[in-house]
Amino acid sequence: MSSNPSIIQLTPVGVVRSTRKAVSDDNWDVENTYIELDATRFDNTALRGLENFSHAEIVFYMDKVNPDKIEYSSRHPRNNINWPKVGVFSQRGKNRPNQIGVTVCRVKAIDGLLLHLDGLDAVNDSFVLDIKPWVTEFGPRGKQYQPSWISELMANYWSAQSTESAETSK
Amino acid sequence: MSSNPSIIQLTPVGVVRSTRKAVSDDNWDVENTYIELDATRFDNTALRGLENFSHAEIVFYMDKVNPDKIEYSSRHPRNNINWPKVGVFSQRGKNRPNQIGVTVCRVKAIDGLLLHLDGLDAVNDSFVLDIKPWVTEFGPRGKQYQPSWISELMANYWSAQSTESAETSK
Repeated sequence: MSSNPSIIQLTPVGVVRSTRKAVSDDNWDVENTYIELDATRFDNTALRGLENFSHAEIVFYMDKVNPDKIEYSSRHPRNNINWPKVGVFSQRGKNRPNQIGVTVCRVKAIDGLLLHLDGLDAVNDSFVLDIKPWVTEFGPRGKQYQPSWISELMANYWSAQSTESAETSK
Repeated sequence: MSSNPSIIQLTPVGVVRSTRKAVSDDNWDVENTYIELDATRFDNTALRGLENFSHAEIVFYMDKVNPDKIEYSSRHPRNNINWPKVGVFSQRGKNRPNQIGVTVCRVKAIDGLLLHLDGLDAVNDSFVLDIKPWVTEFGPRGKQYQPSWISELMANYWSAQSTESAETSK
C-alpha cells in the first residue's frame, strides 16, 4: 500500500457507561454497563428491533491507552514470558494500533437511547464506534481451534468471582 | 454525552485485496481475499502466531459507502418491505454511521505481510483498521436467538453457488 495511508475520521455514536472506572484486565462480569447513544444525532428508532437479538457486537475506542505503549510488532501477552511472543494482531490486548475493541455482549434491555448490556469489557466513558446485532451466520465457520496460552489468559477474564482467596472465617 | 463528541482519527493498518471489485450483497464465498499490511509501519512479526488460530476477526472501513445514504434512524433491511423496519444498529448493512465492518474469517495462510483469508466480505482496496484472533471465550455466551428476517437475508450471503439458474445446455 502507499506509504501515506489515508487518515480515517470517525465520530462516536455514543459512550460507554460502566461501573469499571479504571483500566484493569479481568473479572468483567462484575460490572454493570450500558451504552448511551449521542442524542444530537440519534433518536429511539436507532435501536429498534435489537431486543429480538440475544447478543450485540460492540465496536469501541479504548481512549485510555497510552500511545507510547502501543505495540506494532510482537510481545508476550500481558508481558507473561510463560506465553509465547506473538504478533500484535495475534492477541487482543488493548495496546494495539487504532485502539479498537470488539466484544459480543448480551442484550439486556433497551430504554430509548440507552442499551443495557452484559459482558461489555470497556471502561467507563469509552467511545462507541458501532453497534451491530450478533448474527449466527457471521460467527466462525468450520473447525475452530486456538492455542492453549489464550485459554489460560482468558481464565478469569469474565469471572465474577474474585481471584483473591475467599474471605477468611472470623 | 456532550453535543460535540471528539473526532477519532485512525490510520489503516493495511488494505484488503479481493477479487470482489464492486459493491454487491451476496455470494462472498466465491472471492479470493487477502490483507496486505502497511509495510511502512509493520514487519512480519506483527502476524506471528496467528496461524495457530483457526479464525481472525477483521475490522475494516467501507470507504465506498455513499455518505448521503448513511442511515441514522431505521429502515427496512435491503429496503425489502417484507422485513421489519428496524434501527440502523439492529442490522449489519453497510450504510451505517462510521462505515465499519467486522467479520470473522478463516485464517488460510500467512506470508510475510500478507494474511490470506476465507470469508472476508470486504471490497477490494477497503482499509483494514484492526486484525484480532478469534477467541472462543469472546464468542456469544448463553442462549442465542435472532429474528427470522435476518436468517432469510443471510440465505445467499456466503453461498458460492450462483443464485442465477444453472447454465443452460448448448
